[in-house]
Amino acid sequence: MEFLDVIHKRHSIRQFDSKEIDVKKLESLLQIISSAPSAGDLQSYELVLVKDQSHREALAHAALGQEFIHTAPVVLVFCANADRAKQKYGHRGEILYSVQDATIAATYAQLAAVELGLATTWVGAFDEEYVRDIVGELKPICIMPIGYPAEKPEPTPRRPIKDITHYEHL
Amino acid sequence: MEFLDVIHKRHSIRQFDSKEIDVKKLESLLQIISSAPSAGDLQSYELVLVKDQSHREALAHAALGQEFIHTAPVVLVFCANADRAKQKYGHRGEILYSVQDATIAATYAQLAAVELGLATTWVGAFDEEYVRDIVGELKPICIMPIGYPAEKPEPTPRRPIKDITHYEHL
Repeated sequence: MEFLDVIHKRHSIRQFDSKEIDVKKLESLLQIISSAPSAGDLQSYELVLVKDQSHREALAHAALGQEFIHTAPVVLVFCANADRAKQKYGHRGEILYSVQDATIAATYAQLAAVELGLATTWVGAFDEEYVRDIVGELKPICIMPIGYPAEKPEPTPRRPIKDITHYEHL
Repeated sequence: MEFLDVIHKRHSIRQFDSKEIDVKKLESLLQIISSAPSAGDLQSYELVLVKDQSHREALAHAALGQEFIHTAPVVLVFCANADRAKQKYGHRGEILYSVQDATIAATYAQLAAVELGLATTWVGAFDEEYVRDIVGELKPICIMPIGYPAEKPEPTPRRPIKDITHYEHL
């Protein structure tokens, strides 16, 4: 698909078809995610693929009852690997680079999903402790249900570009 | 350009041609950046475009003497707008969502640059206070020189996908 089409077709999707994602497609997804840049090429993040229905339901619960999450066949949980970044970059790696590495990887995942005919929503509102109970002891920074879309979303509003952009100074 | 070509052609570039980036191209860049997703569509980030040579040199200095930064015709500084996210999302917005919004926008900027025939490097190592002295009082999370590439980079190594990916649990 053309890059600009991917950019324009990426929307939050909260209704998913029950169709499974086949292994080949998941492999392509992971390949694209893996090409995301990271501080010092360390890729200081870990990605948990959650397929088990009871785990998906638990994640929906941990995300303050956003029930649509467990209707996707796969839920990705991106976690910052703070220790990995800390070893090379100290405190800044721990608190910033690992969160950024995981965030960049999740950004790639959303675009890769569109390329592969899939759709996602980025879920940021969740109880971190509860998510850790489900997937393990690293800092989760994004829950991302992924599957075939079963709705046509509307584009969401944007700030005017002139409000976001500043020349030389804020 | 095809999405996968953009993904594969994105590399860190530290040698730039002296050619300026024309206004139309910068507008296209900003348009793509602006389509990046954000928490609650708030776009809790600000983007500073730095063209002035003395400011570019100051940014290189603030980035611990990474002199290649000021050789790019434009240096983008992505800043988290913590107050903007805090108003809707409280502490989590302030410390996480605003950093993520700015990080996602910077990720889009790198890919958009490739689409437009430009190149970038993501610079994360810098003195935050010093950067604030140059561009203003928000939290800078990425310095990104952008211009026409004057080198052909090698692909960088990646962790094996099976090491990054976990099924159900970390």
